Amino acid sequence: MEDRSISQAVIGRLPRYYRYLGDLRSEGVERISSQELSGIMNVTASQIRQDFNNFGGFGQQGYGYNVNTLYQEIGRILGLDKIHTMVLIGAGNLGQALVNYVSLKNRGFIFKAAFDTDPKRTGRMIADVPVYPLERLPEFIDANNIEIAVLAVPRGAAADVKDILVHTGIKAIWNFAHVDLEVPEDIQVENVHLHDSLMKLSYNIRCHDEEEVKSGKR
Amino acid sequence: MEDRSISQAVIGRLPRYYRYLGDLRSEGVERISSQELSGIMNVTASQIRQDFNNFGGFGQQGYGYNVNTLYQEIGRILGLDKIHTMVLIGAGNLGQALVNYVSLKNRGFIFKAAFDTDPKRTGRMIADVPVYPLERLPEFIDANNIEIAVLAVPRGAAADVKDILVHTGIKAIWNFAHVDLEVPEDIQVENVHLHDSLMKLSYNIRCHDEEEVKSGKR
Repeated sequence: MEDRSISQAVIGRLPRYYRYLGDLRSEGVERISSQELSGIMNVTASQIRQDFNNFGGFGQQGYGYNVNTLYQEIGRILGLDKIHTMVLIGAGNLGQALVNYVSLKNRGFIFKAAFDTDPKRTGRMIADVPVYPLERLPEFIDANNIEIAVLAVPRGAAADVKDILVHTGIKAIWNFAHVDLEVPEDIQVENVHLHDSLMKLSYNIRCHDEEEVKSGKR
Repeated sequence: MEDRSISQAVIGRLPRYYRYLGDLRSEGVERISSQELSGIMNVTASQIRQDFNNFGGFGQQGYGYNVNTLYQEIGRILGLDKIHTMVLIGAGNLGQALVNYVSLKNRGFIFKAAFDTDPKRTGRMIADVPVYPLERLPEFIDANNIEIAVLAVPRGAAADVKDILVHTGIKAIWNFAHVDLEVPEDIQVENVHLHDSLMKLSYNIRCHDEEEVKSGKR
């Protein structure tokens, strides 16, 4: 199994395969061909085979794939066979929602604590996660082997928090702050820029509106 | 200005340009060359020029770009010169956080109401946004010319809500439910799959860990 040089585009498609396979598994489906999967997922069968070939192909095409094996194997590739420890930084509305959301849905991702600079927020709990003052962050990360920092602070605060994080043993940042973070190569960053997503939607609305005007529908 | 056939990759980069230009503008920068912008944004100058050429180029390269004009123009392309009316569907933790987050940060995107099936949530307010029973959704969308439905319901409920939405005049769905929505062509969908994003992070952590083991760092 060789996944050293796999493109981020292929990686980006794995969670979707995982999701569909999880559904098929729950429905009791045991085997599925790339053609059948193609029909359900709205991707060409050749794309599916190409994607899977990056990971050794996952078994014979003629018989189809074993759904459960494929699900487990993609889960393993995605690192979902391990527990990932997390901290939240920024215990505002979005941060609180993320703690509740992740805790509810992802058994393998565990929030161990939250951190904030606002004394009105510290000392409280979000679900069963305690909120501590930001000063305690570095010590907590290293004492508890925290892997992932979830950054839900205002954009003005993001650079300062990043500077703290790079001096800890943190492995990854799930970044909701509306800035691009510059971090050393050994820290993985995944951005969720909600603003940017909303702007893309707004762009597509505008284009569609203009098309309708041009084609005389309005 | 011809933006009919512009790739989603280019569109996906526009919000980032808009963000950096907004910052430069706040700092009082009046003109910037593609080289300077390249240095700040960590994109090649040729990529920037190619992207901008899709929209007519935005002025002469020799003199650099006028920051304010470019900011306004990209904003217009992104449809940010108009007000976008929104409803939230699913007033749980994530939905509430989205109302607070968007209301705070995006002046052009206005939540007019939220909808839920849970009587414990309806009749309340999220910030200054009222929460109504889901039955009132179609009537509300059409009476208030709502453009965007923000879908923050559990995945099991998403298909039913989508079926309601496609019979209204809604233009777009900002989808946080962990399913792919099949909608008619004239409804724009932008997915924010938080799970998928977390899985990509987990994949990159695993690969980095394995690299370190291989290279003898651990």
